[in-house]
Amino acid sequence: MTAPIAIIMGSQSDWDTMRHAADTLAALGIAADSRVVSAHRTPDRLFAFAKGAKAAGYKVIIAGAGGAAHLPGMAAALTELPVFGVPIESRTLKGVDSLYSIVQMPAGIPVGTLAIGKAGAINAALLAASVLALSDPALSDRLAAWRKAQTEAVAERPEDRA
Amino acid sequence: MTAPIAIIMGSQSDWDTMRHAADTLAALGIAADSRVVSAHRTPDRLFAFAKGAKAAGYKVIIAGAGGAAHLPGMAAALTELPVFGVPIESRTLKGVDSLYSIVQMPAGIPVGTLAIGKAGAINAALLAASVLALSDPALSDRLAAWRKAQTEAVAERPEDRA
Amino acid sequence: MTAPIAIIMGSQSDWDTMRHAADTLAALGIAADSRVVSAHRTPDRLFAFAKGAKAAGYKVIIAGAGGAAHLPGMAAALTELPVFGVPIESRTLKGVDSLYSIVQMPAGIPVGTLAIGKAGAINAALLAASVLALSDPALSDRLAAWRKAQTEAVAERPEDRA
Amino acid sequence: MTAPIAIIMGSQSDWDTMRHAADTLAALGIAADSRVVSAHRTPDRLFAFAKGAKAAGYKVIIAGAGGAAHLPGMAAALTELPVFGVPIESRTLKGVDSLYSIVQMPAGIPVGTLAIGKAGAINAALLAASVLALSDPALSDRLAAWRKAQTEAVAERPEDRA
Amino acid sequence: MTAPIAIIMGSQSDWDTMRHAADTLAALGIAADSRVVSAHRTPDRLFAFAKGAKAAGYKVIIAGAGGAAHLPGMAAALTELPVFGVPIESRTLKGVDSLYSIVQMPAGIPVGTLAIGKAGAINAALLAASVLALSDPALSDRLAAWRKAQTEAVAERPEDRA
Amino acid sequence: MTAPIAIIMGSQSDWDTMRHAADTLAALGIAADSRVVSAHRTPDRLFAFAKGAKAAGYKVIIAGAGGAAHLPGMAAALTELPVFGVPIESRTLKGVDSLYSIVQMPAGIPVGTLAIGKAGAINAALLAASVLALSDPALSDRLAAWRKAQTEAVAERPEDRA
Amino acid sequence: MTAPIAIIMGSQSDWDTMRHAADTLAALGIAADSRVVSAHRTPDRLFAFAKGAKAAGYKVIIAGAGGAAHLPGMAAALTELPVFGVPIESRTLKGVDSLYSIVQMPAGIPVGTLAIGKAGAINAALLAASVLALSDPALSDRLAAWRKAQTEAVAERPEDRA
Amino acid sequence: MTAPIAIIMGSQSDWDTMRHAADTLAALGIAADSRVVSAHRTPDRLFAFAKGAKAAGYKVIIAGAGGAAHLPGMAAALTELPVFGVPIESRTLKGVDSLYSIVQMPAGIPVGTLAIGKAGAINAALLAASVLALSDPALSDRLAAWRKAQTEAVAERPEDRA
Repeated sequence: MTAPIAIIMGSQSDWDTMRHAADTLAALGIAADSRVVSAHRTPDRLFAFAKGAKAAGYKVIIAGAGGAAHLPGMAAALTELPVFGVPIESRTLKGVDSLYSIVQMPAGIPVGTLAIGKAGAINAALLAASVLALSDPALSDRLAAWRKAQTEAVAERPEDRA
Repeated sequence: MTAPIAIIMGSQSDWDTMRHAADTLAALGIAADSRVVSAHRTPDRLFAFAKGAKAAGYKVIIAGAGGAAHLPGMAAALTELPVFGVPIESRTLKGVDSLYSIVQMPAGIPVGTLAIGKAGAINAALLAASVLALSDPALSDRLAAWRKAQTEAVAERPEDRA
Repeated sequence: MTAPIAIIMGSQSDWDTMRHAADTLAALGIAADSRVVSAHRTPDRLFAFAKGAKAAGYKVIIAGAGGAAHLPGMAAALTELPVFGVPIESRTLKGVDSLYSIVQMPAGIPVGTLAIGKAGAINAALLAASVLALSDPALSDRLAAWRKAQTEAVAERPEDRA
Repeated sequence: MTAPIAIIMGSQSDWDTMRHAADTLAALGIAADSRVVSAHRTPDRLFAFAKGAKAAGYKVIIAGAGGAAHLPGMAAALTELPVFGVPIESRTLKGVDSLYSIVQMPAGIPVGTLAIGKAGAINAALLAASVLALSDPALSDRLAAWRKAQTEAVAERPEDRA
Repeated sequence: MTAPIAIIMGSQSDWDTMRHAADTLAALGIAADSRVVSAHRTPDRLFAFAKGAKAAGYKVIIAGAGGAAHLPGMAAALTELPVFGVPIESRTLKGVDSLYSIVQMPAGIPVGTLAIGKAGAINAALLAASVLALSDPALSDRLAAWRKAQTEAVAERPEDRA
Repeated sequence: MTAPIAIIMGSQSDWDTMRHAADTLAALGIAADSRVVSAHRTPDRLFAFAKGAKAAGYKVIIAGAGGAAHLPGMAAALTELPVFGVPIESRTLKGVDSLYSIVQMPAGIPVGTLAIGKAGAINAALLAASVLALSDPALSDRLAAWRKAQTEAVAERPEDRA
Repeated sequence: MTAPIAIIMGSQSDWDTMRHAADTLAALGIAADSRVVSAHRTPDRLFAFAKGAKAAGYKVIIAGAGGAAHLPGMAAALTELPVFGVPIESRTLKGVDSLYSIVQMPAGIPVGTLAIGKAGAINAALLAASVLALSDPALSDRLAAWRKAQTEAVAERPEDRA
Repeated sequence: MTAPIAIIMGSQSDWDTMRHAADTLAALGIAADSRVVSAHRTPDRLFAFAKGAKAAGYKVIIAGAGGAAHLPGMAAALTELPVFGVPIESRTLKGVDSLYSIVQMPAGIPVGTLAIGKAGAINAALLAASVLALSDPALSDRLAAWRKAQTEAVAERPEDRA
């Protein structure tokens, strides 16, 4: 059976960031496929993947990319599934280029964009989970428990660290 | 019966932007409630709304805000429903402040952020529709038709305008 | 007796910055409580704290947060006490996101914002001290002495360092 | 008797923004003196004013300036009173220059900075009021009433405008 | 016979900018085809066009797009022809988003990027002309004459305008 | 015989970046001359070089520069050959200054600008190769093979790295 | 006799800004020549002018340019006279591109840069005047009088305007 | 006898940057005094220094400061001598704050601003030298020799470094 979530990324090096999405989904008991799909170096792979994603059984696509970062937007252009984009921190512009390239999509083709870098990867997973939870009460419970544990893990006083 | 989508916005003046989300949902045959909820001027209303949104039957929250733009992130902190944020164009910083305040959420609480302004409002509606369509085949068909019509409406040659 | 100043911060890791506010207040002989209050992960704690801050006897709230940085503004929305915000340096955007999220508050709910990072934390303490000194002549004297010592500590010639 | 608040601004043209601070203070029943004090064109006036502000009886200084915007920081260097700064929207850089010049003060001399433009001017007045209210119960009541009225003025539904 | 230059643009509204490229090519006696090709709304058209551009006889592609602006980079991913990109001025971010999305291409797929807006459109045409002129001496002469006329049209003294 | 490509750079230290252009051209079997030509410190060398580039037999000029980065634009002002510019990453502004100085050329004198840093240097070489390939079928084949190899080098799954 | 100041600008349209430099010099009784010298469209004119400026008797060069804005830096590369640069407000980037291109000169070739736009043009004139005044006591007196009049023209109270 | 150049800086730590100005002046045989003058921590020292600078015999003031960076502008407000400003690289904003605070002076009080950091410090010295050289032929010769040596030190080919 196909996993409900596909995690795609523009290059091998994006995995350092995107594995946090995979790890978060795993922690919530959600299966995910992680693939390298470069909009620029493998456009045919992108077309085949994105056009076939719905038929393949995916429900949500998480796409990470840096710099010109066309992957999330092009995936969204080629599927009607929800696409969530993660701007990868870039070397010189620190991900501002990635962010603008992903979030400033024209009317008609949406990409739900998360924060730059690791926090964005984790949150893309949580957002995808919240979408799946709409029709999966057991997942909804697991997500609620995850959120509750997160709340309880916040210490009262900063001096607690030592 | 509660509408599946709630559109909330930080101030009355945000309606000029956010009504494009409402119009897009209407065009797709999706019911939506539009409300003014100011994180800063009506924090109790925000808490009551966001904490009760799931129980009230909402599936997705679309939140628009400008400037410091805390509404989408605070709504996301108070519900497990998917929250999509629309950065409203601000007077001096042109929505860069709104964008950063909405998209740069810390790990743990996601907001799927769309483009600044009208395009973002339309796309928030389309993204919400794609989420609902995952469990609503009729909506899925309507969304596919909407996308197809959009594609067909693109002229071949720019000189066609006159 | 409650301390006159509350120092709150969005996460444990903000303490590296915010302890400079605590240290500065201590140097001026002003008691302060330091607490972790995450707007996003512990919104109920935020509401309870900020709504009760005045009744608890606090006079000024110093709030540090990074990234989307909703803590200072939400605290200000929930209390009539003066709130001073410290933008924490963030990893990718270097605190520009924190700064915009804190300073660009809409009309009606003010946050007095200081510089990004350590200098801002120190200055939030000094600004809070200047507020308390308005009705505390002894503190006013200590603050004047601190300022005088600071002036006298500035060397005449840069070569003095070795 | 001296008013408790001084509103100073770098040029005559800043009055279009800063009069919103004056109007807000007036609405709260707080007396204020408004003066043009240019750090660059009238440095002696700045020195005389800021050094004498405390002895003259002022409690809080609100300073608005645009561009290089040295006025708030220099006033803060010359007095121990709390200084709140308002970045005036500048023509080309839209107040980003004003904001950075005001908020990025070095450790030792604080300026509590508000939002760029009109919202910042209103909020500087509200923040100053919150400081005065710490030792003025009647003002504290008026400020609470002002906040309550603000909350109640937020409409429930955006369609109410027509 | 196919024109040597294809001018493509992401939407009808980009023609206001891109027609300056067409006009400049016409002034140099170079034939060009102008087409609307939206990377997001007509991805199949983009694929068909860009993959077939070389076989169709085009030598250079000029691509204009705004906002997320994926068109130039995706065209470059699908052809080995030189692609020159024109960042269209966007409403809120003034073309900085367009610029970053076009210029920050990853190693392996180049887009030669020109200035934001009208100047960029004119220069994309001049750059394409300089490429064609490498193997077209008559065009090389026309281009040299165009440049010479441009130089001679610069007045000596600014007061000449009245 | 003169090489078809000249690689010029503003300072010795730019070679760390620009050698990637030289290496990429070498990999494609294209000869190139690499020279240091400082617009600011050696303006006469710049004038002599750029004015004589066409007569010397060069076809394309690749110019890298950082900071004020006048070299690409001045070279373009002095030759009708295509000029491709590479913004070198600068110390404080991370190449944003270099990028703006190179890409924002006025109408009349084009510079095809690539990404900031190493990726831009590689892509300048690839873009120059695509220009030469228009009239060199053997090079066209080599470029196609290079592109094909690049596509095939993209792994399917991110976990492959270990 | 040659005027002591040359005002050069990149295009005719820059005169709207640069005439404020000319007017300010005239008010101080300093002769100036104003010329259009485009670094990009008339590089030979630039070379001839800048290389000959010292021999022609000029003492200071004021150079205004917008966008890539190479004129001030290239003039400085070609003369040992002091060069003061005025960043002209550009259409899309509001002069940030002009500012970076002018101010970020590499070590070895200085340009003293003034503010973006009209204020910068006026100040370039004043700065040039202060340089000439070092060896011209009469001008020094006129400059002192101009400064004194400026100080006296600052109104005390903002309400004076009506 | 007073040195003709005063180098002032906002804090001891700015000396790491500003000593490059001192070294460059020394290499040109120009005497300079280097002093720490903090606009914020030692405003009285600033007033005394800047008001007395002309009478003390200084010809040019070089002022370096970071962050809010009021020192150059305030010095310029207090003297009619030419003031050249060096934006010190700041920790979080990398000197963009310093640059805006120094360069965006209002009409009436000029600061000739150099590049951020070390290059700016060197260039401030060279610019000051060019001013002094206007009335000092021997210095003019030394400056010309320095420039000539700089030109000759630029290697022809980047491979020369090893």
